[in-house]
Amino acid sequence: MAKHDLNLDLIFQALSDPTRRAMLARIGQGPLPVTELARPTGMALPTILRHLSVLEGAGLITTEKQGRTRMCAALPETLAATEDWLSTQRLQWEARTDRLEALLAMTTPPNPCRSSSH
Amino acid sequence: MAKHDLNLDLIFQALSDPTRRAMLARIGQGPLPVTELARPTGMALPTILRHLSVLEGAGLITTEKQGRTRMCAALPETLAATEDWLSTQRLQWEARTDRLEALLAMTTPPNPCRSSSH
Repeated sequence: MAKHDLNLDLIFQALSDPTRRAMLARIGQGPLPVTELARPTGMALPTILRHLSVLEGAGLITTEKQGRTRMCAALPETLAATEDWLSTQRLQWEARTDRLEALLAMTTPPNPCRSSSH
Repeated sequence: MAKHDLNLDLIFQALSDPTRRAMLARIGQGPLPVTELARPTGMALPTILRHLSVLEGAGLITTEKQGRTRMCAALPETLAATEDWLSTQRLQWEARTDRLEALLAMTTPPNPCRSSSH
């Protein structure tokens, strides 16, 4: 997935729900049918389908009809691109902190104790 | 921030809004007063304060009253921990794919074209 295709609003919205994160983790273990995904949750199929639609809309999974079964599969490249976005933000923050520290070191007067020892 | 302190619901909810992501990027450039953060946005102060409260509740920023000014500062460790969570998920997905590919390679019959050349 190209970076410009990322819809961070939809991705973060999809990830903000613990049920959807749990579903994503299960789908990440390997493609599986919707019915199998629903079984251990005890949730109604329409609820599962609504969550899957949010995950699919965000580009985190894909679903495909195979005969009478709808299969779900993870799209790890969307997670990777989201990680990239977070890490770019964090590196910018850290670079700023490093620059401030360097500036502070340059403007700090020499240690008077060291000077007096000469 | 320890991993168990991470509230992924609140973090992803906070990051799902483009206004909050833009505010976060500005705060990441260095601590600044709320009034300065509000100025270029043209948004009313109560709106800004509501977004800041969501970012602070998620542990992405901290705010502190200094005299009559409220200062905002970024907390990069929360972004780093969120990145860790995403990368753990992705690595689990990729490990599964690698295992499946290895299994497929083991169970694939030898290439008949290669065999016939002997």
